[in-house]
Amino acid sequence: MDKPLISRHLVESDGSLAEVPSEAPKVGILGSGDFARSLATRLVGSGFSVVVGSRNPKHTAGLFPSAARVTFQEEAVGSPEIIFVAMFRDHYATLCGLSRQLAGKILVDVSNPTEQEHLQHLESNAEYLASLFPTCSVVKAFNVISAWTLQSGPRDGNRQVAKRAVLEMVHAMGFTPVDMGSLASAREVEAMPLRLLPSWKVPALLALGLFIFFYAYNFVRDVLHPYLREGKNQFYKLPVSVVNMTLPCVAYVLLSLVYLPGVLAAALQLHRGTKYRRFPDWLDHWLQHRKQIGLLSFSCAALHALYSFCLPLRRSHRYDLVNLVLKQVSANTSHLWVEKEVWRMEVYLSLGVLALGTLSLLAVTSLPSIANSLNWREFTFVQSTLGFVCLVLSTLHTLTYGWTHAFEESRYKFYLPPTFTLTLLVPCVVILAKVLFLLPCFSHRLYKIRRGWEKDGAVRFTLRGDHALAQKTSHV
Amino acid sequence: MDKPLISRHLVESDGSLAEVPSEAPKVGILGSGDFARSLATRLVGSGFSVVVGSRNPKHTAGLFPSAARVTFQEEAVGSPEIIFVAMFRDHYATLCGLSRQLAGKILVDVSNPTEQEHLQHLESNAEYLASLFPTCSVVKAFNVISAWTLQSGPRDGNRQVAKRAVLEMVHAMGFTPVDMGSLASAREVEAMPLRLLPSWKVPALLALGLFIFFYAYNFVRDVLHPYLREGKNQFYKLPVSVVNMTLPCVAYVLLSLVYLPGVLAAALQLHRGTKYRRFPDWLDHWLQHRKQIGLLSFSCAALHALYSFCLPLRRSHRYDLVNLVLKQVSANTSHLWVEKEVWRMEVYLSLGVLALGTLSLLAVTSLPSIANSLNWREFTFVQSTLGFVCLVLSTLHTLTYGWTHAFEESRYKFYLPPTFTLTLLVPCVVILAKVLFLLPCFSHRLYKIRRGWEKDGAVRFTLRGDHALAQKTSHV
Amino acid sequence: MDKPLISRHLVESDGSLAEVPSEAPKVGILGSGDFARSLATRLVGSGFSVVVGSRNPKHTAGLFPSAARVTFQEEAVGSPEIIFVAMFRDHYATLCGLSRQLAGKILVDVSNPTEQEHLQHLESNAEYLASLFPTCSVVKAFNVISAWTLQSGPRDGNRQVAKRAVLEMVHAMGFTPVDMGSLASAREVEAMPLRLLPSWKVPALLALGLFIFFYAYNFVRDVLHPYLREGKNQFYKLPVSVVNMTLPCVAYVLLSLVYLPGVLAAALQLHRGTKYRRFPDWLDHWLQHRKQIGLLSFSCAALHALYSFCLPLRRSHRYDLVNLVLKQVSANTSHLWVEKEVWRMEVYLSLGVLALGTLSLLAVTSLPSIANSLNWREFTFVQSTLGFVCLVLSTLHTLTYGWTHAFEESRYKFYLPPTFTLTLLVPCVVILAKVLFLLPCFSHRLYKIRRGWEKDGAVRFTLRGDHALAQKTSHV
Repeated sequence: MDKPLISRHLVESDGSLAEVPSEAPKVGILGSGDFARSLATRLVGSGFSVVVGSRNPKHTAGLFPSAARVTFQEEAVGSPEIIFVAMFRDHYATLCGLSRQLAGKILVDVSNPTEQEHLQHLESNAEYLASLFPTCSVVKAFNVISAWTLQSGPRDGNRQVAKRAVLEMVHAMGFTPVDMGSLASAREVEAMPLRLLPSWKVPALLALGLFIFFYAYNFVRDVLHPYLREGKNQFYKLPVSVVNMTLPCVAYVLLSLVYLPGVLAAALQLHRGTKYRRFPDWLDHWLQHRKQIGLLSFSCAALHALYSFCLPLRRSHRYDLVNLVLKQVSANTSHLWVEKEVWRMEVYLSLGVLALGTLSLLAVTSLPSIANSLNWREFTFVQSTLGFVCLVLSTLHTLTYGWTHAFEESRYKFYLPPTFTLTLLVPCVVILAKVLFLLPCFSHRLYKIRRGWEKDGAVRFTLRGDHALAQKTSHV
Repeated sequence: MDKPLISRHLVESDGSLAEVPSEAPKVGILGSGDFARSLATRLVGSGFSVVVGSRNPKHTAGLFPSAARVTFQEEAVGSPEIIFVAMFRDHYATLCGLSRQLAGKILVDVSNPTEQEHLQHLESNAEYLASLFPTCSVVKAFNVISAWTLQSGPRDGNRQVAKRAVLEMVHAMGFTPVDMGSLASAREVEAMPLRLLPSWKVPALLALGLFIFFYAYNFVRDVLHPYLREGKNQFYKLPVSVVNMTLPCVAYVLLSLVYLPGVLAAALQLHRGTKYRRFPDWLDHWLQHRKQIGLLSFSCAALHALYSFCLPLRRSHRYDLVNLVLKQVSANTSHLWVEKEVWRMEVYLSLGVLALGTLSLLAVTSLPSIANSLNWREFTFVQSTLGFVCLVLSTLHTLTYGWTHAFEESRYKFYLPPTFTLTLLVPCVVILAKVLFLLPCFSHRLYKIRRGWEKDGAVRFTLRGDHALAQKTSHV
Repeated sequence: MDKPLISRHLVESDGSLAEVPSEAPKVGILGSGDFARSLATRLVGSGFSVVVGSRNPKHTAGLFPSAARVTFQEEAVGSPEIIFVAMFRDHYATLCGLSRQLAGKILVDVSNPTEQEHLQHLESNAEYLASLFPTCSVVKAFNVISAWTLQSGPRDGNRQVAKRAVLEMVHAMGFTPVDMGSLASAREVEAMPLRLLPSWKVPALLALGLFIFFYAYNFVRDVLHPYLREGKNQFYKLPVSVVNMTLPCVAYVLLSLVYLPGVLAAALQLHRGTKYRRFPDWLDHWLQHRKQIGLLSFSCAALHALYSFCLPLRRSHRYDLVNLVLKQVSANTSHLWVEKEVWRMEVYLSLGVLALGTLSLLAVTSLPSIANSLNWREFTFVQSTLGFVCLVLSTLHTLTYGWTHAFEESRYKFYLPPTFTLTLLVPCVVILAKVLFLLPCFSHRLYKIRRGWEKDGAVRFTLRGDHALAQKTSHV
């Protein structure tokens, strides 16, 4: 695969191992959205020298990896032969002022039209871009890359370090090499295999903490209280019954914690009126660990199902049943039936099965090989839409379990409210916020922000002094 | 990986984006079976100019992608340097007439000998081919490619579009580029990320339709009928009981619909006496959606299991049990045991568990990463043989559930037959057809057809006027 | 990806298909540990000519693939341009005598420091190596390769055969070619697609054998004995009850057979005082089939769970319950409760669910796509540590099931001990051995052996006559 433009530098380099960025193949990127950022990260990780062109470099610089240079558009497009255009179609025209600098270069159109845009324009985005810059070669690329591949970027999967000949050899051996930079970074590279599931540490501790809290809470309410107040020995409930009351609480709260950071991020964007400011670190980390939290939630839910199916296998279940009948016999009852209780349990169980089924779908689509075969829209549909459905089903499952107990004084043991009322707090906040964001006033503003609009930044689109274009884009 | 033969064209091309097929590297294919077709599709998708050599180009042209040129063998092998031989070993000798045209070229042997052939010949197919064409370089390739990879072809997974330098860059970034042709196709490429699980749409609608039908049917028979005729209020059965009666029906019918198109295709081939005619579009689509239908069947079966395990957790179950005992007590029964009922349920449950276990195996081997590590024979064994075992187990599960109810008048509520009798229709047809095709008269003919034999096509093998060869091959 | 050092030979070769090893690109390897061996196998499989440098070639030769040449270090590093250093950091200095031969060459450092080493040295291993050989170019590579990828080596996944132009074409089609050598090996290559899950054959037969044995054993004890001795007809237990008693036995014994070979291997290494001798073939095969045995164990455990959940759905369960109550009524019992039985079942069920949960984790991390994303340490943690936890949980599950029955004479039917006592044998041996190996005397020796120490081999480190270095390394 002769690489005249790119590999030449790698091959002709004198083999010295210090990183010489000026020799690395240069690539330009126009745009500062999520895609531009992912692209820059991946390109930097693949050994390219990346220059990002921005209308406001100072503002955007913090969003990009430090190895990428962020500068004004005019400057960014000067040197590289290949320039990625990672902007919305509506903004293509704002680039017309760069025509002279772009002449003869290769423009890579990575845009993904929305469904509406796709229907609206007969001409593809790439063809439109080509018509604006007739002297450029326009190539359409990267727009169908899978969500997962892009998200996980070069940090994922099999990493190998290589330089020059080793790089070739690694290739010949059937692996994909990733250049990790100069030998000075060897120490960091050597630490990699020492990591032990680092992305699982915080989520696992969180789940453990929740489990201990809810287990203690349930123990006090359901075992200790009857023992102290009524002298009932129900310690046999510890291995199965209390565990099975605790697991769904953990699963349910964890599931809501998967969707809470997204809600917080949206709220922050709405408040700030822009998407071009980094989230605080804690929120960023939280957003990145949603997958792990979700899988732990699924594990707890699955264990809850297993424990529930074990309930009728217990001796205590058998004895309770026998004693119930003996009581009816001595009371001369001829028919036992409480319609309300029957309905409550039927609905409760059905909702539980459906919630678990939906959660299983989410877990299965988290498998790398499945996630890799889904595009952005499909991945979002499953993880976001189906995930929200699962949260609603779980909430209904919890509500039918709790029924009216929250309003019965006898249920407040040691003044402690029933466990299920505690678990409902976070999920209800998430559901309410999600519904709120669907209101036109919020949803419209969010849509605009996510398309690049800024509260105090309308002026940006006129930076190139082109009034007509400013009008064209300002209505977005 | 210097690519003198292939990449030269890509690199030396003037960078214009219009597709110039005449400049694309040429590849020849001899043969018109499934493998030849898959190969042609994949090669066309990888940017090669493909010429297929056939003994009867008019006849075969419709089977290949339109971008591949189908012509007579003599013509097809003239221009390309590399020629794939995708024929059965027995037909190699029919190529001897092409010796002059093939001289000095590279022949790629892709054949997979059957177990019998492998034992029969000491010389490998590739060595045999090399002995027939001593001036050619014979290379053995592609025969061990995994079933999945070949089937899914270039339509699968991560697709990126790239040209020239972008192609190189994509490679350097660790992705595998797929050339989607000229910029004119950009519109189509841009629509890709808009797709939302397109292959799931029809199967999901089918499953939903079946669910609604069977739910309504069960509702009428098991809830409405007792209510109208006997005034029994059993509406509490709606959330769990009726759902749990409906799910296995859907799962069972869907499973049979996975194997029905294969049976229809075989019947069609038997009727037509050839495999060289396209199946009607509806059958083609159906065949391509078997995986999705199968996974939906598995989902329904898994939900059925979950619902079944929930049954003893219901209050109604408890009350029913208590009332059963109370009735026995008042009737002064001392021992309750119905041997036939006991046996029926034990066998019924055991078959159900085994069917679900087998179905789970099928589902697991559908995961891309698993399917990728299986070869054709393994994939066929699991999906076809185990799948059929699963269908038989499900049928027995259904039959032990239904028992003799189909013959009891009291079971025909509103003259509607028991649900299980309805579900048995399609699966029994499939099983009978499969058994029928095992009869020597059919199986032998099918085997011949799938090896390339045609009812009215024996003459084809003598096309090259070589009588000895015709004799050699006509007994196939 | 211009390959001046490597591909030149491939491309300039005259296209003849006989393998000419002298023309294959040469690679040197220094070291004889597991990593060196895996590397050599992979490189040989990728078409390189491999020379391994050893201090004692005669001793080490048997450990490497026969295609690799094993010779003295001085000789091994003479010819190749690229030399892999697959040794522990402590041994780097022993190479100083080779300085002259290594001058100007490319050294590839593949070392993985232990956590302790990583903390101890500020300088990375690669930088330390570079400081020892200032005239060499040192490249850090392959140390972060995933456990799975390395283990499975070139035998895994999609294999294609290709030469010269075909190799390029295969690449262009998006596949990864693997050169399987000269055409003489075509016969072997052609046999590949005929294999039917070869790695599953022995494990599956083993599982089947165990199932038949335990099923027969349980049948004799639980069905035949009551029939012959007490005239009780309990044949209805055959489809569910006896199967459900048999499955956990099979699952439990299989799980212990996953960990037994590791224990045997460690015992053998302790006994021999070296890791540089091949294990007997049967042990090697056993070690390689652990994954399959583990997955069969999981399948049996999962079926056991399904069957258990089916128990309360059986008619026999219902009748037993009814008859139990009827007996209590006629005996005028007013309350039935056996505290010991209640506790036993609760603990038993809880342990079972936890064991199944842990086993599921092991099964999920066996999926290729998951295993690929774990590094050595993570893979070992899950498969070895979690696996051992699972074995302990299963043992406790079995013990609470058996309770004191092993000591009750009435349980010895036909003098046969209860089934669970049989199953405990192997697992208890494994657990005891594992605990034994944790004792300092054994664990220290094992650690030394696995770092390359040999009982009678201290002299090796002084081979180069460097007394100071010998001292440095002999304390390892």
